[in-house]
Amino acid sequence: MARLAGVSRATVSYVLNNTGAVRISEPTRRRVHEAARELGYVPHAAARSLRAGHSRIVLMPAPAIAPGPLYSRYLNELQWALGRLDYTVVQHGNVGLHGDEAVRAWAELRPVAVLVPGAGIGPEGVAVLKRSGARAVVTLGPEPVDGAHALLMDNERVGHRAGAHLYARGRRRIGVVVPEESGLEIFSRPRLAGVRNALRGTDGTVTELPLGYDEESAARLAERCRGLGLDAVFAYNDEYAMLLMRALQDDGVRIPEETAVIGADDLMLGRLLRPRLSTVHIDLPSGRYVADLVDRAVRNPGAAAERLTVLGATVVQREST
Amino acid sequence: MARLAGVSRATVSYVLNNTGAVRISEPTRRRVHEAARELGYVPHAAARSLRAGHSRIVLMPAPAIAPGPLYSRYLNELQWALGRLDYTVVQHGNVGLHGDEAVRAWAELRPVAVLVPGAGIGPEGVAVLKRSGARAVVTLGPEPVDGAHALLMDNERVGHRAGAHLYARGRRRIGVVVPEESGLEIFSRPRLAGVRNALRGTDGTVTELPLGYDEESAARLAERCRGLGLDAVFAYNDEYAMLLMRALQDDGVRIPEETAVIGADDLMLGRLLRPRLSTVHIDLPSGRYVADLVDRAVRNPGAAAERLTVLGATVVQREST
Repeated sequence: MARLAGVSRATVSYVLNNTGAVRISEPTRRRVHEAARELGYVPHAAARSLRAGHSRIVLMPAPAIAPGPLYSRYLNELQWALGRLDYTVVQHGNVGLHGDEAVRAWAELRPVAVLVPGAGIGPEGVAVLKRSGARAVVTLGPEPVDGAHALLMDNERVGHRAGAHLYARGRRRIGVVVPEESGLEIFSRPRLAGVRNALRGTDGTVTELPLGYDEESAARLAERCRGLGLDAVFAYNDEYAMLLMRALQDDGVRIPEETAVIGADDLMLGRLLRPRLSTVHIDLPSGRYVADLVDRAVRNPGAAAERLTVLGATVVQREST
Repeated sequence: MARLAGVSRATVSYVLNNTGAVRISEPTRRRVHEAARELGYVPHAAARSLRAGHSRIVLMPAPAIAPGPLYSRYLNELQWALGRLDYTVVQHGNVGLHGDEAVRAWAELRPVAVLVPGAGIGPEGVAVLKRSGARAVVTLGPEPVDGAHALLMDNERVGHRAGAHLYARGRRRIGVVVPEESGLEIFSRPRLAGVRNALRGTDGTVTELPLGYDEESAARLAERCRGLGLDAVFAYNDEYAMLLMRALQDDGVRIPEETAVIGADDLMLGRLLRPRLSTVHIDLPSGRYVADLVDRAVRNPGAAAERLTVLGATVVQREST
């Protein structure tokens, strides 16, 4: 590049690293930049971050389960909003890494901010990230973590809304589906607790119903529902609700007369069933909102941790309840 | 850390950077490592890669559309398999970046390998990545790209199988759904071409049917199908097929007697419909297989580009065709 620009290698380095230590004339600067463009030079993010002391990387662990359309849309919006603020969003594929090991792997990339969904990190993890140069750690989960900003995703509320709706519709023996697939506990446990809380002190009962995401498991559960005499089920989300409702119908159960079924997420596919599926509509925060929180936290790493409840939940009643 | 270990800062640097240039006794080395552990020291991937001349980062652009369960499972398996080979998988959230701009953003992270799905890169992009230190570029798409290894995802075959199946079932006026949602063209275009190819030289006709992923759009299309006198539809995938089939049924069309409907992806939800949805089952390559290809390519960057067709497609006939 020095040869092409007709300058010394040191000059190239001064110009591309934008060092203020040495005065370089504008024409020389331009020649170096033109040569760089011609040669397809790309700055090294690592080298830049070593020099600057911090990177522009916002790191998130890649989701270990298939994200639904709702979460995918949120993620795209977030990446876009952070991109506009000149951050680079990087999803770290730490499948198989847990706890400390995962945190250390993230820290190696020296992110300026880390967004951790679920129960993926404790106070020690936050400390490791901060020691490694992260200016902000933001958790998305049911509980705040010391030292981190918290976007509180209140899944208890989702269950509470479903339970209260079923009770108001006159149902008393309520089943709650808990998926057997691993990785969903951080959502399913608080949803179950929410139904229990909604029914506390009433004449209603709550029964936990494990369900695997396949037709055989659904057929077995449909039979069990009959034996338990349940008159309603909150089926975790719309996909499990579709699965269980079909199995109940195949078993001759009339929906909603004999058993009411409600899901969550408000998927379009739920509206295609007959009866149309009732659901709990969930509002995730906008990507813009989260991006602004990250940027605020990066600019002011000393500020007190923010705690924001961000998950809205409203029942959409259709025909299945 | 030097204070805690009771050694000089230079010694700490020599030990942690594993420099061979200076001889350091085993007890000193141990003291430094113990102090590092105690202080929660995390090595800097960027600094390590600057020293080593290359990183262990395998970069993929994050998918801009909601990945279905099929692709999510493949991605998890791939991340896991690459993790076992000591690579770090990083998904780059380049929403809003295109072409050269995206490639340069990827290159800044100095990945040792880049996996690009779809039509995301051309020969110049491959060259930029290689100049920036990538030892291997692997594309996943319908066409190979000069300088890159190619995993050929043959979506033409998916459409071909669907078209041949419908023709064999006696259907002659065949519609093919093309989603209006952007980002799906790289799948929908070759699928449409595949149906055309399957029907070429026969007495069958193929009609392109744009469809948005919502009920209103589906209701309009159902009416149009009637006007066109179509006796079969390949509905791009199972989700669009579920949407259109419901709209046809609501319009009083008997499935499959009047109109046969087939999807693709073999989603579990398609089996829940009545009639059960016929589909094209798609086999993605195993994550292990792709991880091995990446590792082979990284170890031997001079080897000739591999071109492997990796997408299997077989019709699963249920009740809707």
